[in-house]
Amino acid sequence: MTDPLDTTSDRRPGGRTARVRAQVLDAVRAELAERGHEGLTMEGVAARAGVHRATVYRRWRDVGGLLVDVIAAAGEIDWQPPDTGSLRGDLTALNQEIQESLLVRPSFAVALMAASFHSEQAARAQTQLWNDRYDQCEILVERALTRGELPAQHTDARGLLIAATAPLYHQLVLLRADPDPRLPERAALAAVLAAAAGAFHIGRDESMR
Amino acid sequence: MTDPLDTTSDRRPGGRTARVRAQVLDAVRAELAERGHEGLTMEGVAARAGVHRATVYRRWRDVGGLLVDVIAAAGEIDWQPPDTGSLRGDLTALNQEIQESLLVRPSFAVALMAASFHSEQAARAQTQLWNDRYDQCEILVERALTRGELPAQHTDARGLLIAATAPLYHQLVLLRADPDPRLPERAALAAVLAAAAGAFHIGRDESMR
Repeated sequence: MTDPLDTTSDRRPGGRTARVRAQVLDAVRAELAERGHEGLTMEGVAARAGVHRATVYRRWRDVGGLLVDVIAAAGEIDWQPPDTGSLRGDLTALNQEIQESLLVRPSFAVALMAASFHSEQAARAQTQLWNDRYDQCEILVERALTRGELPAQHTDARGLLIAATAPLYHQLVLLRADPDPRLPERAALAAVLAAAAGAFHIGRDESMR
Repeated sequence: MTDPLDTTSDRRPGGRTARVRAQVLDAVRAELAERGHEGLTMEGVAARAGVHRATVYRRWRDVGGLLVDVIAAAGEIDWQPPDTGSLRGDLTALNQEIQESLLVRPSFAVALMAASFHSEQAARAQTQLWNDRYDQCEILVERALTRGELPAQHTDARGLLIAATAPLYHQLVLLRADPDPRLPERAALAAVLAAAAGAFHIGRDESMR
């Protein structure tokens, strides 16, 4: 007989399975951030999580499995894109979130990018997560169109979102520039002005030829 | 007595020192591209270059030294930014060069970025190289101002160049998107339209508050 209030049950959300997963993924994030991808081992994660090595091997198999699951867990967070009332405000707020995630030390986001250069599995999971996030953000562009902030043509929402956010990753991750507190707003503004001028109209390339 | 025509002399450009360096750096590039940063060893480079291990250790000391020198050598190439007659054309041509360097397989450029996540020395050398290249490209913006393609205000040339090029790195390196042959021109166009609308005026942030 199972006790419906028994939170140690293996089968319910919040039960033992979920608790072990949370402990292991917390350990993965901490190890990744502290030691980087090269320092991530099944043994280190098991020890840090206080979970049997055999459990970690059985459930996650190898370091690639841990990376994929930690990225999947990031995708399970109930993240919502900003809603500030203007496209410029929304993109600025989004860029501020990105900037924070890239500047915090140690940065889980940067550790994940580094890992994805070395693990095909991690790279695929990260691409999927990023695609999901950009899909979620397309509503920012839809709202801007509804508010009349952009010309009422078919807009390449993804292209606009990439233009707005890419300078953050480029400056902070690849160029390792000193953080600039105005960068989130500046990059957002450039994308909004380009969009207002029709840079992301679908079909524009064709019509200009 | 030294023979002035002796090209094996250690002291003249094109002499033995330069030849050994060229062989070793060719080997570093090939090993990096084929095996990535984790596969780069002093022994592997020496064997591939056909140079004594002792020479490689004496001159480059460790893998970090090899990475720094291969990046320095990239900076010594007599690279010139494009000059097509328009800012949009110049930025498109620049983006096409970037896209090619990121898509060629194996890609030395991508291997270097991966390495810079793991080697502080490589990261610093890469940042320096990129800063030099962006400095060189500022002439594109100066020419556009002279031609009257941009409003005659003080322009943040670096910000404009980052906006134009960042989407290439973001899409191809971090998001691992399928290559889009129109991306170089689209990213260039978005930056030009943003610039024409004043996105990169220095002092703009202040005046809008």
